Amino acid sequence: MAVKKITKIGVMTSGGDSPGMNAAIRAVVRTGNYYGLEVFGIVRGYQGLIDDDIYKMDNKSVANIIQRGGTILKTARCKEFFEYEGRKKAYENLKKRGINGLVIIGGDGSFRGGKRFHEEFDIPSVGIPGTIDRDIVGTEFTIGFDTAVNTAVEAIDKIRDTMDAHDRMFIIEVMGRDAGFIALHSGIATGAENILIPERKTDIQDMIASLKEKEKRKKLVNLIVVAEGDEFGGAEGVNKIIKEHLPEMDTRICVLGHIQRGGSPTCIDRVIASRMGYHAVECLINGTFNIMIGIKENRINHTPLEKAAKLKTRVSDEWMKIVKILAS
Amino acid sequence: MAVKKITKIGVMTSGGDSPGMNAAIRAVVRTGNYYGLEVFGIVRGYQGLIDDDIYKMDNKSVANIIQRGGTILKTARCKEFFEYEGRKKAYENLKKRGINGLVIIGGDGSFRGGKRFHEEFDIPSVGIPGTIDRDIVGTEFTIGFDTAVNTAVEAIDKIRDTMDAHDRMFIIEVMGRDAGFIALHSGIATGAENILIPERKTDIQDMIASLKEKEKRKKLVNLIVVAEGDEFGGAEGVNKIIKEHLPEMDTRICVLGHIQRGGSPTCIDRVIASRMGYHAVECLINGTFNIMIGIKENRINHTPLEKAAKLKTRVSDEWMKIVKILAS
Amino acid sequence: MAVKKITKIGVMTSGGDSPGMNAAIRAVVRTGNYYGLEVFGIVRGYQGLIDDDIYKMDNKSVANIIQRGGTILKTARCKEFFEYEGRKKAYENLKKRGINGLVIIGGDGSFRGGKRFHEEFDIPSVGIPGTIDRDIVGTEFTIGFDTAVNTAVEAIDKIRDTMDAHDRMFIIEVMGRDAGFIALHSGIATGAENILIPERKTDIQDMIASLKEKEKRKKLVNLIVVAEGDEFGGAEGVNKIIKEHLPEMDTRICVLGHIQRGGSPTCIDRVIASRMGYHAVECLINGTFNIMIGIKENRINHTPLEKAAKLKTRVSDEWMKIVKILAS
Amino acid sequence: MAVKKITKIGVMTSGGDSPGMNAAIRAVVRTGNYYGLEVFGIVRGYQGLIDDDIYKMDNKSVANIIQRGGTILKTARCKEFFEYEGRKKAYENLKKRGINGLVIIGGDGSFRGGKRFHEEFDIPSVGIPGTIDRDIVGTEFTIGFDTAVNTAVEAIDKIRDTMDAHDRMFIIEVMGRDAGFIALHSGIATGAENILIPERKTDIQDMIASLKEKEKRKKLVNLIVVAEGDEFGGAEGVNKIIKEHLPEMDTRICVLGHIQRGGSPTCIDRVIASRMGYHAVECLINGTFNIMIGIKENRINHTPLEKAAKLKTRVSDEWMKIVKILAS
Repeated sequence: MAVKKITKIGVMTSGGDSPGMNAAIRAVVRTGNYYGLEVFGIVRGYQGLIDDDIYKMDNKSVANIIQRGGTILKTARCKEFFEYEGRKKAYENLKKRGINGLVIIGGDGSFRGGKRFHEEFDIPSVGIPGTIDRDIVGTEFTIGFDTAVNTAVEAIDKIRDTMDAHDRMFIIEVMGRDAGFIALHSGIATGAENILIPERKTDIQDMIASLKEKEKRKKLVNLIVVAEGDEFGGAEGVNKIIKEHLPEMDTRICVLGHIQRGGSPTCIDRVIASRMGYHAVECLINGTFNIMIGIKENRINHTPLEKAAKLKTRVSDEWMKIVKILAS
Repeated sequence: MAVKKITKIGVMTSGGDSPGMNAAIRAVVRTGNYYGLEVFGIVRGYQGLIDDDIYKMDNKSVANIIQRGGTILKTARCKEFFEYEGRKKAYENLKKRGINGLVIIGGDGSFRGGKRFHEEFDIPSVGIPGTIDRDIVGTEFTIGFDTAVNTAVEAIDKIRDTMDAHDRMFIIEVMGRDAGFIALHSGIATGAENILIPERKTDIQDMIASLKEKEKRKKLVNLIVVAEGDEFGGAEGVNKIIKEHLPEMDTRICVLGHIQRGGSPTCIDRVIASRMGYHAVECLINGTFNIMIGIKENRINHTPLEKAAKLKTRVSDEWMKIVKILAS
Repeated sequence: MAVKKITKIGVMTSGGDSPGMNAAIRAVVRTGNYYGLEVFGIVRGYQGLIDDDIYKMDNKSVANIIQRGGTILKTARCKEFFEYEGRKKAYENLKKRGINGLVIIGGDGSFRGGKRFHEEFDIPSVGIPGTIDRDIVGTEFTIGFDTAVNTAVEAIDKIRDTMDAHDRMFIIEVMGRDAGFIALHSGIATGAENILIPERKTDIQDMIASLKEKEKRKKLVNLIVVAEGDEFGGAEGVNKIIKEHLPEMDTRICVLGHIQRGGSPTCIDRVIASRMGYHAVECLINGTFNIMIGIKENRINHTPLEKAAKLKTRVSDEWMKIVKILAS
Repeated sequence: MAVKKITKIGVMTSGGDSPGMNAAIRAVVRTGNYYGLEVFGIVRGYQGLIDDDIYKMDNKSVANIIQRGGTILKTARCKEFFEYEGRKKAYENLKKRGINGLVIIGGDGSFRGGKRFHEEFDIPSVGIPGTIDRDIVGTEFTIGFDTAVNTAVEAIDKIRDTMDAHDRMFIIEVMGRDAGFIALHSGIATGAENILIPERKTDIQDMIASLKEKEKRKKLVNLIVVAEGDEFGGAEGVNKIIKEHLPEMDTRICVLGHIQRGGSPTCIDRVIASRMGYHAVECLINGTFNIMIGIKENRINHTPLEKAAKLKTRVSDEWMKIVKILAS
């Protein structure tokens, strides 16, 4: 089959936003323009595709955004696109402009949408993994993870100042519904005594025993970092369990929340976003469709969109041992 | 009455910690040593005084701490000091070392303790206002406020990135049980649409009406900054009221929490802490006792310890008008 | 004389840029629009006035800029405006749009231009002090100083890490051609051993003697902060003198440079910029012309534009004593 | 040959300091103590070994240092250790304490010293790559690179604010005597128009031609990032060439300098330092000697100390194309 020549492409951000998405948009627009393509920004992901909220972008549209958090194209979750009718409307909006290729910056759900859209309407797409959770198959980097984890580390550093001043115990909840990467990395980086993640069962009796021991020695400073999706129900849940066993203990809770999604992206997030954006356009031009751009072992890696699912990963024993030894 | 000559002084941090306390400790120790006084660090505030947790400090003890959050002397709230027996123990611990002057870095409660201690045991003290709330009579600056408010601003900036990406409404709770200064300043600095503070009744019907208006226009981005001590009960309370009137509205809550207490102090907090620490020792040497060091109109100001109470302030109409116009 | 009613105003930034200028522009535009004025942005200061680079601004024009360094209106120094011909062109560009009032955000030079312009062409203006140097008569705050000094402090903190690791001496040059405020504040806040400023003669023999003493004791860490406009010629000049007297000493130089002009403004810079911008428009509306808005003792203060000159200030003996004692 | 059992180890930092070294020291001490080894800190690298500046470390010695730049063990370059006499003294200081293993955190020069020391005196060592330059064979990460490059990015972001405000050209020099990684990454991350690195010849005529083109279009903003070790001699050299060809152009120079060495380490630098420190001790215990710990493809990688030389790398054409397209 002859490869259809791509001449006009759309770019969108979809799902939860993550810092570095703007750097990816910039790279897509500049690379597209460099190769003589017309590039269109689609506002609010699939919703904008359906609502026809689409505008032409040139290099000026993406000036001075590489350092900005959020996404200038905005993002949304879109139920209508799950229905055939929605996808049909979306297609018509592309068709009337002659857009014949898409770059989708988002997570695994967004990629499945792109896959389906291609099957039905023959608009090929390339995905770029943009999520702070870093839990996508086929890539060691996702745009936003490094920024999110550094934001968490800076916040926990601040909390440690006051924790040490008061000899107090803190339970800090970081983002991660299914994945504990943010908790694991930010916990190691801040010297957390306990790190609770969805990927691992925590021996809560062991943790309680060690807290009791500390209480006896009046060594009360203790930092627990817990992923929101942990089995015990985040910081509130962990606190409840501790209070049951150690009712006298003075604990404080912090839920870091949405600060982890925003902020100026780190160097890595900008660089990988730039690199992925560039390659996404190269792929569309070269007829490599319906794949997600990833980076593995410092090389670009392609994963079929339908396989770019949430990563069910194992956190290795090595890491858990490092946590145990360094925090002991 | 001849002024008793001060030869050995103790320095402590008491109450909630605030960034810049270390800079004040450093200034007290260095100024004391410069003038030939012996300086003792008292650990955990009045608790350390009672527990005899006291150690000699020299310039090396305070090297490389000016940039650190928290307090190397730790801090605590101490019930025992409310009892005469506790204060007696404290006195004996000072007496056996010959300590005859105190510098108390903390809030109004800590100062009242110092005042009482002097009446009973003739140990004079000088207070330095260290609280992120900036609500102490007799000073325009308290150590930690500027850092706390900048931490809040940086956090809200990050949240605004994701707020704009999703066209969402956020309700952000900042510290301030009795005082709305952090909310007012961080709200203005981040362009908050609504700022809710304890010092002012909020016309909640007016706020709801304006949100309804926005909902109609699909202009959904709206940032509400609320002090924890506001009449509606912080972010949770405000959210509940909004949900009653606008059940469809997509709102998110962030409680910034303890990150506001920690972190490397800003330039201002370091400079005023240094200046106040220096003057506290000068006062003890010159026989100016039982006062709190403040800064007013860029000059050092003395307030009797018993009058250095929580400031019951009025937020001026000027500020509320600025909030209204700039966020409209 | 009846006060001419202001209906359309122009706003510009002029001279060196400073962080917080965008917050001031935002406040001018929003306040103007609130009161029903038309507001025009003038690009590149007086140059844009002459070149007719002027555009209408509404609330959307200033969305999401309060947290940004630089100035969306750009800035320049403009020689043509010194000539009558230039000013005449500028006037004609205003006249054809009906602009009958100006807000000038900049330094003393820019204000003198505004004063002259009013005398010749009867376009009244109000000035807002925007300069990182904080050396303008009639105000305790200028937009950008707090951000600049915090940027300097953060940079010096980083340098201190490496200085301590190597036991090395560093000479750090901060901005300040005529004023030593940045050097004084950043030096105190980072515990600098020596602070050299244009306002004070430095006893260089005394400094050399103390360095020799340190060299003997092998206490080699020494941090010197020098303003670029100091008598010895900035960091290079100071280094040369030290090398003459202590040729063996291992010194390093850092010129912080332009990082001090940029960056997201601090809370204070955003708040005072917002407040000043609001008042500038209020003044134009109320017929209070040809003044600079300042803040003194926490109240708005008006200074006639022609008197808003560079502040020839004295750095008080109190500060120099604090420097001496705390760094000793 | 039976493997000698390691019972007491020394840890040192050597060569230029880099952010994250403290996290590595902490990991070595805690892992050593966990396994029942005695751990000694050696002050100022090989110099402290010769001067017998060595002290016992326990978990408390490394409390609260994971987030700090610099190195609590200090570092130095040491000529004496190049001589046999120096190494002999060093050996005797170890022998008298029974120290029979070393962890050396530093660069390739430090590793060669360790190799030689082992050959002569049979004290085995394990190396950990600590350098901001990321130019060591056998590892994709070196401690400090990520922090340094983010510091550079934040500084350049600030400079871009003022660059845009004035439509000015800036030439920014970042660290990197032999390696252009910091320049390449920080340049891409800040959207630099030109990136000049030692690994690549720059077509200076091409650059000048493009600047001339820009000058014609009055598009004067142009950001050049140059590594200090570039063929043209850093920022000064580049500026000289530009001035020769474009004497009218308004250029500014910034040499970022030592700020790139300090500051609180990023999450990655803390995590890899912790991981490497843990593995270094595991290796000593398991008899895996005279290797450097690296990380490749997310796995621990061992390189013989004598091969852990400076990496002579090629920057791939892919990167140069990305730079060209994204900045065009």
